[in-house]
Amino acid sequence: MDANQLKQLLEQVQNGQLATDKALEKLRDLPFESIDYAKIDHHRALRCGTPETIYCPGKTTEQIIEIFQRMAKKGTNVLGTRCEPETYEALKKVVPNAQYEQRARAIVLYQEEKKETEGIIAVVTAGTSDIPVAEEARVTAEVFGQTVQTIYDVGVAGLHRLLSHNESLQKASVIIVVAGMEGALASVVGGLVSVPVIAVPTSIGYGASFNGLAPLLTMLNSCASGVSVVNIDNGFGAGTIAAMINRQTSKK
Amino acid sequence: MDANQLKQLLEQVQNGQLATDKALEKLRDLPFESIDYAKIDHHRALRCGTPETIYCPGKTTEQIIEIFQRMAKKGTNVLGTRCEPETYEALKKVVPNAQYEQRARAIVLYQEEKKETEGIIAVVTAGTSDIPVAEEARVTAEVFGQTVQTIYDVGVAGLHRLLSHNESLQKASVIIVVAGMEGALASVVGGLVSVPVIAVPTSIGYGASFNGLAPLLTMLNSCASGVSVVNIDNGFGAGTIAAMINRQTSKK
Amino acid sequence: MDANQLKQLLEQVQNGQLATDKALEKLRDLPFESIDYAKIDHHRALRCGTPETIYCPGKTTEQIIEIFQRMAKKGTNVLGTRCEPETYEALKKVVPNAQYEQRARAIVLYQEEKKETEGIIAVVTAGTSDIPVAEEARVTAEVFGQTVQTIYDVGVAGLHRLLSHNESLQKASVIIVVAGMEGALASVVGGLVSVPVIAVPTSIGYGASFNGLAPLLTMLNSCASGVSVVNIDNGFGAGTIAAMINRQTSKK
Amino acid sequence: MDANQLKQLLEQVQNGQLATDKALEKLRDLPFESIDYAKIDHHRALRCGTPETIYCPGKTTEQIIEIFQRMAKKGTNVLGTRCEPETYEALKKVVPNAQYEQRARAIVLYQEEKKETEGIIAVVTAGTSDIPVAEEARVTAEVFGQTVQTIYDVGVAGLHRLLSHNESLQKASVIIVVAGMEGALASVVGGLVSVPVIAVPTSIGYGASFNGLAPLLTMLNSCASGVSVVNIDNGFGAGTIAAMINRQTSKK
Amino acid sequence: MDANQLKQLLEQVQNGQLATDKALEKLRDLPFESIDYAKIDHHRALRCGTPETIYCPGKTTEQIIEIFQRMAKKGTNVLGTRCEPETYEALKKVVPNAQYEQRARAIVLYQEEKKETEGIIAVVTAGTSDIPVAEEARVTAEVFGQTVQTIYDVGVAGLHRLLSHNESLQKASVIIVVAGMEGALASVVGGLVSVPVIAVPTSIGYGASFNGLAPLLTMLNSCASGVSVVNIDNGFGAGTIAAMINRQTSKK
Amino acid sequence: MDANQLKQLLEQVQNGQLATDKALEKLRDLPFESIDYAKIDHHRALRCGTPETIYCPGKTTEQIIEIFQRMAKKGTNVLGTRCEPETYEALKKVVPNAQYEQRARAIVLYQEEKKETEGIIAVVTAGTSDIPVAEEARVTAEVFGQTVQTIYDVGVAGLHRLLSHNESLQKASVIIVVAGMEGALASVVGGLVSVPVIAVPTSIGYGASFNGLAPLLTMLNSCASGVSVVNIDNGFGAGTIAAMINRQTSKK
Amino acid sequence: MDANQLKQLLEQVQNGQLATDKALEKLRDLPFESIDYAKIDHHRALRCGTPETIYCPGKTTEQIIEIFQRMAKKGTNVLGTRCEPETYEALKKVVPNAQYEQRARAIVLYQEEKKETEGIIAVVTAGTSDIPVAEEARVTAEVFGQTVQTIYDVGVAGLHRLLSHNESLQKASVIIVVAGMEGALASVVGGLVSVPVIAVPTSIGYGASFNGLAPLLTMLNSCASGVSVVNIDNGFGAGTIAAMINRQTSKK
Amino acid sequence: MDANQLKQLLEQVQNGQLATDKALEKLRDLPFESIDYAKIDHHRALRCGTPETIYCPGKTTEQIIEIFQRMAKKGTNVLGTRCEPETYEALKKVVPNAQYEQRARAIVLYQEEKKETEGIIAVVTAGTSDIPVAEEARVTAEVFGQTVQTIYDVGVAGLHRLLSHNESLQKASVIIVVAGMEGALASVVGGLVSVPVIAVPTSIGYGASFNGLAPLLTMLNSCASGVSVVNIDNGFGAGTIAAMINRQTSKK
Repeated sequence: MDANQLKQLLEQVQNGQLATDKALEKLRDLPFESIDYAKIDHHRALRCGTPETIYCPGKTTEQIIEIFQRMAKKGTNVLGTRCEPETYEALKKVVPNAQYEQRARAIVLYQEEKKETEGIIAVVTAGTSDIPVAEEARVTAEVFGQTVQTIYDVGVAGLHRLLSHNESLQKASVIIVVAGMEGALASVVGGLVSVPVIAVPTSIGYGASFNGLAPLLTMLNSCASGVSVVNIDNGFGAGTIAAMINRQTSKK
Repeated sequence: MDANQLKQLLEQVQNGQLATDKALEKLRDLPFESIDYAKIDHHRALRCGTPETIYCPGKTTEQIIEIFQRMAKKGTNVLGTRCEPETYEALKKVVPNAQYEQRARAIVLYQEEKKETEGIIAVVTAGTSDIPVAEEARVTAEVFGQTVQTIYDVGVAGLHRLLSHNESLQKASVIIVVAGMEGALASVVGGLVSVPVIAVPTSIGYGASFNGLAPLLTMLNSCASGVSVVNIDNGFGAGTIAAMINRQTSKK
Repeated sequence: MDANQLKQLLEQVQNGQLATDKALEKLRDLPFESIDYAKIDHHRALRCGTPETIYCPGKTTEQIIEIFQRMAKKGTNVLGTRCEPETYEALKKVVPNAQYEQRARAIVLYQEEKKETEGIIAVVTAGTSDIPVAEEARVTAEVFGQTVQTIYDVGVAGLHRLLSHNESLQKASVIIVVAGMEGALASVVGGLVSVPVIAVPTSIGYGASFNGLAPLLTMLNSCASGVSVVNIDNGFGAGTIAAMINRQTSKK
Repeated sequence: MDANQLKQLLEQVQNGQLATDKALEKLRDLPFESIDYAKIDHHRALRCGTPETIYCPGKTTEQIIEIFQRMAKKGTNVLGTRCEPETYEALKKVVPNAQYEQRARAIVLYQEEKKETEGIIAVVTAGTSDIPVAEEARVTAEVFGQTVQTIYDVGVAGLHRLLSHNESLQKASVIIVVAGMEGALASVVGGLVSVPVIAVPTSIGYGASFNGLAPLLTMLNSCASGVSVVNIDNGFGAGTIAAMINRQTSKK
Repeated sequence: MDANQLKQLLEQVQNGQLATDKALEKLRDLPFESIDYAKIDHHRALRCGTPETIYCPGKTTEQIIEIFQRMAKKGTNVLGTRCEPETYEALKKVVPNAQYEQRARAIVLYQEEKKETEGIIAVVTAGTSDIPVAEEARVTAEVFGQTVQTIYDVGVAGLHRLLSHNESLQKASVIIVVAGMEGALASVVGGLVSVPVIAVPTSIGYGASFNGLAPLLTMLNSCASGVSVVNIDNGFGAGTIAAMINRQTSKK
Repeated sequence: MDANQLKQLLEQVQNGQLATDKALEKLRDLPFESIDYAKIDHHRALRCGTPETIYCPGKTTEQIIEIFQRMAKKGTNVLGTRCEPETYEALKKVVPNAQYEQRARAIVLYQEEKKETEGIIAVVTAGTSDIPVAEEARVTAEVFGQTVQTIYDVGVAGLHRLLSHNESLQKASVIIVVAGMEGALASVVGGLVSVPVIAVPTSIGYGASFNGLAPLLTMLNSCASGVSVVNIDNGFGAGTIAAMINRQTSKK
Repeated sequence: MDANQLKQLLEQVQNGQLATDKALEKLRDLPFESIDYAKIDHHRALRCGTPETIYCPGKTTEQIIEIFQRMAKKGTNVLGTRCEPETYEALKKVVPNAQYEQRARAIVLYQEEKKETEGIIAVVTAGTSDIPVAEEARVTAEVFGQTVQTIYDVGVAGLHRLLSHNESLQKASVIIVVAGMEGALASVVGGLVSVPVIAVPTSIGYGASFNGLAPLLTMLNSCASGVSVVNIDNGFGAGTIAAMINRQTSKK
Repeated sequence: MDANQLKQLLEQVQNGQLATDKALEKLRDLPFESIDYAKIDHHRALRCGTPETIYCPGKTTEQIIEIFQRMAKKGTNVLGTRCEPETYEALKKVVPNAQYEQRARAIVLYQEEKKETEGIIAVVTAGTSDIPVAEEARVTAEVFGQTVQTIYDVGVAGLHRLLSHNESLQKASVIIVVAGMEGALASVVGGLVSVPVIAVPTSIGYGASFNGLAPLLTMLNSCASGVSVVNIDNGFGAGTIAAMINRQTSKK
């Protein structure tokens, strides 16, 4: 039952063609999903300005291009994650403004005006191998319209590298910490700042890293309050959460 | 917004006090949950004859008695699982018809007429230590109004014990297999019959049983098709599922 | 010792050629497996109309074709699971009526009349990546002669997608829920219906999904009663169990 | 070397008692930690209004009382988590204004003026057993000066319970979801809102819950973007992070 | 259908009271388990001289005494494992010849003549804490009528302790190695001898021993061929297997 | 210090060239390994008739051929496990009598006379996929000079297949059970016989088999006494242990 | 065969009572363990000054006192770990000089002269809850005669606390880092110094700490070279290793 | 703020251009990292003679060559680990003195004079498959300027092989034990010596080795005191730690 049907029903009540009892019964049978959720989704779209995103693995180039084009028509920014360079090459021919973020392996189309946001998201990595995941987080946050500063390769085994960026850390509204191996960086950063830290364990490491299980456990057990954790290698998730937080800071 | 409020709205439309456009808008804003779910729940209650159940651990005797009494007023059977004998002693004083199933550690109140169902649920255990979990399954299924036959202590290390009950197994519409240690019984039973087998791993065992992990994995990997698995020691869940299946057999 | 030998023995007793004591002794030595199991298997075949099935991995194309042809002669439906397209191409030349279900990666031969069954099996997936496993379940159930309705890509992150199919869910006699990542869909569906839910965790996901361990644990711990679980990616098992349940609904 | 010593050094330079070269050398040897960190910590205290907190387990009643009193002197709110009632009884005698939050097992002393914050933190639980962890989160956030709304016992097995609070969920700036068993609630809530969701797995459950491992993995694998996770039963951590986020919303 | 019924059937055939066709049919329906398994079990009893055993945990003192007495009547040795001293005190009153093996926590009744067997079973432990499990193995093997030599506290951290018993090791027909902590002893013993080694991991140890998982994995991965493994702390199982092996050596 | 040096020392004592005190001191410094171990190894070789074996993976074809030839010179049987067909092709040119066991992926050279042993080793598999591991066990035992009977594809899901081989099982002196998936076969066989059962879990299976962890745990937790376990896929180990056991049976 | 027997043998050779051939044969049969190991152990005792140690759990007070007294007679320091206060009270009566280290739960008897060693062992903890394990390490190292400096409660969440002890860290010859929760401290300390770091994970923490598994994995995956790890809560092991290292520094 | 800026500040104070109060304030704002860490790092370089090292995986040949050349200019030894032969071939053209350690897969450039150190590091392996990891440890220690002796293929299954090197073991100052499969060698070596043992589990093995988890647990649970553990396959880490320890022995 869509809005038209509902309107007809109400008109029948108005015209006396339908008793209120009968109408009540019909409304009770009204599938609960038809009206309300559509509305909610509409509201969310209006309220959030959330960019459209595609998770590319498992989709053919044709599928990605088709979805990307359909999304692009809405006028918001568009993001495709975990995307092969070949796919970008094919996409570029039909969406010339699309860009390829090589390290993040992401395709992006900026259609909304970029503005410096009041709050800043810092993205920090322990090593150079963690950078692809960090870049996915950075690109995601930027596609969400947020301002990002990156601080890479400042792992705890050389504490001075991290401490030399203390000023930048203190300025951020939310910090994403990306680390593999033992993942200790999240705790150390969490101890230096008083803003939320989103920790991303990476599958970088070997042996008893168990594909990221070690930094995942490290981060979950962080002794620094303020640290929450997303899935292993989930740069996109971290970028989204950081954008959600920073948006609240920025919009006021 | 409850039914009364909705009725008033419709009457206002009928009386011309409210334009259809305005009414439509109000209905669109109508919280999606208010009407439909209540109805669905109501329907489910009518359709299923589902007994009321209480999971006792973590609740005080007073809370259990109060909830039990409230449930009892609906006229359906009532089941309390994982219940201490002391709680039953206290309950009996205010609900004299309540019974205590000692091995299942369950309190039950039968208020619906018991009828032999066409389909039969067989509950099978590997050892005597698995019986408490099996009894929880049996009591649950019986409280759901289903007919149950129990076949206990027929583990695979003495195959003849199991095979001597082959006839009973062949007659069942659905079979619950309860086994700890290595949990092999589910596969063997699954290979003998062509009806659904609900496997319940138990935490019985020691060492590398890892509190039921071993039989859980065994059952999930069963080479016999027809075997699905519930959580460790979850006799209640198995009894419920078996009742759901047997009810379909029986109701026609 | 087959039936003929047994008949001879009895005739010898009848004719007085063999004393009852000697006959008793011979019968005691009779291998227990010779008569009874053959009969049981025969009975099962008659009773169940179970289709013949081949698990293809690890078998050569030649072996698959040979087994498939032998099975096809029995006149029942035939199913080959996890089958490569190349194998189907080769099979088609000798069994022209065999069909290839691409998404399920299954080869099927329908030899039994298809009839709409009274009960309906719903197959539901959380995402599009779960579809291959779901399709294996669907094809399996159909080869078993059951009627299936599919509801794909209705994961819990967009609840309205699921709720818009509530009517279909309520009509089903048994529901297969296929979900990777966090596997929450099984609990949500289990809470909406009062029929058995067969949950299939898939290995879709990354990081701490640990190849399907995460949705497996989620489903085993479902707070909704009525949910039982099969092995990771085991669409065939789920389809078989659902068919076993639905057959009971339908045959009456 | 503290500020006084540093001042003396500078005065010696000013007075010509110390050559700049010598002073430079002394400054180079200046332990890097002495000045800067003190300042940072000071700044953090000023900037954050962070309440003082004590984690009580493993400390004697005497130790807790002594630390509590020392903290109370600073004039900020004070929070003691995981605190036994007996400890509170003893504390109350010397800090009469301290309150005991029974379900959260927390002792609190409010010394700062409570104000309704602009942003609201919603704390949601799947079951009643998850409430103690949720209450720890609520109390923590309130001690941080934030406004909290609680929505308890709205697990996914009865979806209408959750959906009936949709309006409250939509109003929140950040949502804490506390769930044991299968932990699916975080994904469902994450799919309904567009603000950060902090997921807290609880050790509630049995069998293959493995003391909270199951909901932990579920939440880490959430298909809903916007969900980050803290340690099992870590209500304090979730409350702190939510407060950090909401503070940014509120302060502008 | 027992032997008498079968005899009657044959006599009816002999007397012409029953046609062979009818008899054949009856025999075909004969439950497969009735004859053969009884026979097999009987044979096993005759062939093996297997002692009767009771696993005591989870049984009441009354149950243990009753089962013990019933077993004792058969004239074989009787063994009760994991038995509390109190149970033995009660049993002794009715079975005065029963003995209590304190370290093994076993009750035993020797009714068969003890003879020195040709083959010898060596039971070796790494530490003193492993002795209870080793004693359970020793008692089990002795109750099975086998000759056992014990070599305790010869862990690999002091290799000379082990090597000083090399002669005894070389004389054994089968060796049981009981070890907790890192479980390395099984490999070292396996490398010194050319007879089967039954390895029993124990739950002795702390931290990353994970209740016996560490020695279990160690033993399964033994680089010495000839080592097979039983469950953690399963002295009874090891004793039984060793007796089975040694019996073959001894009976010829 | 070898035997010659030792003899010289004794002659010096005899000749009075060396005081007993000095000789004693020299002997005390005598590396403990020089004499005794050499002897032990020598004795083992004489006593056991153990064949020479090579584990091929990680060795070049040249290395395998060289080691194989060196071993062949000793006149015992030679076994190379996990060997690629290409390696065999190269080896055959220089050791023409070497044979290739295709399913076992083993190269063997029989140089000792084959004799039927009194005891028989039965090798049993659950499925056809387990056969390669079983064949490695069979070939190993045969290279050790033992008689083997194979019973393949008798998994518990079709119990009659196993039971039809009951007679063969009863005749065996030791039984190797090879099974993947849920590994239940070991318990069932263990319950049918009274001889040692060596269980070999295989990595066959999918999903929650976790590369053989499921059958490994199943077998370790076997409720049938008499079952011990070797590493996943370790056919060689099982064959060696079975040969050690059967050799004791046979030599008398 | 002990030294006396060996001397007799040599004298018999000297006296011509025993031919060298016979003597050689006897020596070849000489159990390899009798001489050499005794010597080695003796040498070790002389060389190392290793204190005698008792692991108390699982031993009765009587046993502990007896062993302690026997050890005390050798004149070296004596250490009893994981010892209850009651045991110490009993011991003190017979060994009045024994001391009780309360936080380490250790009993110690100093009989060797304490000297300041050249090298210093630093023992560092992340939190106050880690102190008991750290104290066990400290006491162990001191009983080994080494000089220890403790730096407690300097976890990474408050980096300045650690950095304020940088000077002490730089002076140490070897550092023991004791940390629970996420265990990040080992990496941070490892990055600050260029001496060996012995990391001890503790079982302090909750939820996904999994009784110390989290810090264990963290420490094993440390990105700082120079960090090796001992078992969870194994303060004794860490103290021993640190003493072994520091002794080499100190003895020259 | 670098040294120049600091000097200017002091001169301004000296000249009266800057009040001490103002200078104090500026110094308080002085970024804590600028001076001290630079100095510390410088000191560490001077003090340690630590070679420069590159972890090659994930870096392009161009990157490796560039970093290697830059490091080489400092005059210390240079080490590149986990390096492909092709990379070495390319490097050799521009750094002709670089050598390739084939088994260790390491590129090394010796620029410091090699001297025999007083202490010796022994590197021991259980099998030949463990040699690559052992060689990485050896090369690392040698690049650190330490003297190494290797003892390969002395696993515990053939104890005499190990014991024949007892003399070498006793001479070492620190021992690296590299072992896969069950990893028992570390405990046996730890029991023979009284110097620190660094245990390196390797991923060699199959089945329940779980890629090195089995030897890792074995080594962590070693009953021999003196054993600490590094990550699976981490030869570089072990070599570094051993060098750190041996350097202390040698420098005095």
